[in-house]
Amino acid sequence: MTTDALTRTAEWPGLVNPDGSRWHYLDTAATAQKPQVVIDAMVRALGSDYATVHRGVYARSADMTLAFEAARRKVAALVGGAENELVFTRGATEAINLVAQTWGQANLKAGDRILISTLEHHANIVPWQLLRDRTGVEIDVCPLTEDGLIDLDAAERTITPAHKLVAFAHVSNVLGSTLDAPRAVALARRVGAKILLDGCQSVARLTVDVKALDADFYVFSAHKLYGPTGIGALWAKAEILDAMPPWQGGGAMIDKVTFEKTTYAPAPQRFEAGTPAIVEAIGFGAAVDFVQAQGLDAIHAHECALVAKAREALRGMNSVRLFGPEDSAGILSFALEGVHPHDLGTILDEEGVAIRAGHHCAQPLMAHLGVPATARASFGIYSDESDIAALVRGIERTKRIFG
Amino acid sequence: MTTDALTRTAEWPGLVNPDGSRWHYLDTAATAQKPQVVIDAMVRALGSDYATVHRGVYARSADMTLAFEAARRKVAALVGGAENELVFTRGATEAINLVAQTWGQANLKAGDRILISTLEHHANIVPWQLLRDRTGVEIDVCPLTEDGLIDLDAAERTITPAHKLVAFAHVSNVLGSTLDAPRAVALARRVGAKILLDGCQSVARLTVDVKALDADFYVFSAHKLYGPTGIGALWAKAEILDAMPPWQGGGAMIDKVTFEKTTYAPAPQRFEAGTPAIVEAIGFGAAVDFVQAQGLDAIHAHECALVAKAREALRGMNSVRLFGPEDSAGILSFALEGVHPHDLGTILDEEGVAIRAGHHCAQPLMAHLGVPATARASFGIYSDESDIAALVRGIERTKRIFG
Repeated sequence: MTTDALTRTAEWPGLVNPDGSRWHYLDTAATAQKPQVVIDAMVRALGSDYATVHRGVYARSADMTLAFEAARRKVAALVGGAENELVFTRGATEAINLVAQTWGQANLKAGDRILISTLEHHANIVPWQLLRDRTGVEIDVCPLTEDGLIDLDAAERTITPAHKLVAFAHVSNVLGSTLDAPRAVALARRVGAKILLDGCQSVARLTVDVKALDADFYVFSAHKLYGPTGIGALWAKAEILDAMPPWQGGGAMIDKVTFEKTTYAPAPQRFEAGTPAIVEAIGFGAAVDFVQAQGLDAIHAHECALVAKAREALRGMNSVRLFGPEDSAGILSFALEGVHPHDLGTILDEEGVAIRAGHHCAQPLMAHLGVPATARASFGIYSDESDIAALVRGIERTKRIFG
Repeated sequence: MTTDALTRTAEWPGLVNPDGSRWHYLDTAATAQKPQVVIDAMVRALGSDYATVHRGVYARSADMTLAFEAARRKVAALVGGAENELVFTRGATEAINLVAQTWGQANLKAGDRILISTLEHHANIVPWQLLRDRTGVEIDVCPLTEDGLIDLDAAERTITPAHKLVAFAHVSNVLGSTLDAPRAVALARRVGAKILLDGCQSVARLTVDVKALDADFYVFSAHKLYGPTGIGALWAKAEILDAMPPWQGGGAMIDKVTFEKTTYAPAPQRFEAGTPAIVEAIGFGAAVDFVQAQGLDAIHAHECALVAKAREALRGMNSVRLFGPEDSAGILSFALEGVHPHDLGTILDEEGVAIRAGHHCAQPLMAHLGVPATARASFGIYSDESDIAALVRGIERTKRIFG
């Protein structure tokens, strides 16, 4: 694979400006652009292949069911899991809420503790707070190291047998810091806690193997993996998933319904009430195929090289403060002294560069960093050096305007 | 509008067989095929227009946010509601679960009663049973009239001030029977109960006005309205929605997050945790535009004419039993004596005709009808007389095979 193969705009209709020029899209950590192959797979699923799944007695519905279940296998295999362990959700957020409201509600009680960290996305904070409100569990927050990693030495000192769950981001959506996942799992195991990893930012750039890791729950979204909006995945160990009570009731998740008593289907169907996001599942599978064809090692190497170049370029500029570790994975948060990130973002937009400016759904991390917001440039499979050059030009222009 | 305009296969890529012939798709009540304009809108949203919503500081994200919120206004307006009353959900099933797990959990207690009916879809049964398991509410079941309507005379005799919620299908997904919705609302009002209407089968063929009806909750799915999978809607009266506690936690549904205390955004955002189904919302809006351009009165008249023709043709055949009222809305359930509906469906498939055979996610209704399953032909905007002719040919062939 060459850099050229990764970055051809012809394959990425979202990267083209109306005038045909390249859009310098540096907001992939918010949501990734879609390759043409994913769009094409969805168009076929919406058109010539369209039918419902699991119910039709006609051939096209049977074919669609096969394609839908093949997508489940692909998505499960991406993280080293089996298809019976993979629940399609609306996204990673819903996946975490599902765990909190089924496994959490059934297994946690007042006095039990959950360990999260300072850098978590709101999606890995608020569901546990809602569970706290209902059950009286306590939430502990693991601090960060100087360079923005979850401090597992501190976690080791904090964790006790009262901790029943550890829930950490595999890669931070703000700092790009990568968790030492094997050590985190070992820490949880030592006290008999389960571990949930938020894989939103990891699955698009790291090879994940939930079996080798011995994780309990792993969640991610398709739209950050070059796939569709409206779908994501919960992977959970089969024995845990099998024991979880239903959450949402409806068609497809039942075994037999009477007004007196209803029995439920086995997992994963038990957690997929209603007509599923059929077209989105097909697109999700196509996105997994695409990413695996490129190779996660190649994608990660490509992004690491870009992050290193961007760090070097920004470090050379006066008044730029960089956050996160040197080897941040595809994500670079920074601040420009005396300029609010929103103003920077607006000026960069005029230069054809899209960054994110804000709290990145991580307000507690902003409080920790002592800033209301950061500017964030995040890279993807299609990013290239021209994007970094445009970013630097835009920052320089901003400095002139505010200077 | 002419019948021709409704049924041109060029506008409906899903209606074309691989050999270019017309697919006689009579399973629209399960899921509708998509017009090209909906697919085109989604392709633009996946490609040249793609960006996240509500967060970006760059123009394309602002544009996408406007398009996303415009879609919300369109979907709300379809049922006569306002945008601040419209929550995007994964589908109607999730919408009902949302009501049960927020409004129901917060407002209902042991001793309170919920009134549903014999013809409800599992999605309007199981969420209330799950709520029953948690709260001790009781569920009463309103019987049907001889021809398959919810028997509102019986409801009038049953309902008491202990009933806090009435939850009825606006149009039955099996029988096509249409609820006298104004009378149902009046019955609920008389005892101070709220009313939820399952509009999955009504919004694609009847003009709905939740304000004129004075309904409390109205739910529907996009994929049965010629729109995308993976998205649906909950409309709820503003004062009810505003008072409902959050359900799923995450990004976009918060006001301010600290580890000690989190405050929530106002409705509808409070109920939309995480990156929404952006592309699907755009497609949903395009589907609403499409349906409104055709005109619901015209669509309903078109389907009524087809149902009348199909009933007449099937009534003329020996050994066919028809279910539901004469004026069933776009849906016709039937049985062929001595032939299991699955076998009928399989033979029809060989003839290029797609029907549904099964319990249609309405097992209690099957028990009431005294059958394990029915065959169901359901019509849509694109259905025509050639579909009925093909259905009749297929049934005749089935009779010869089984005769």
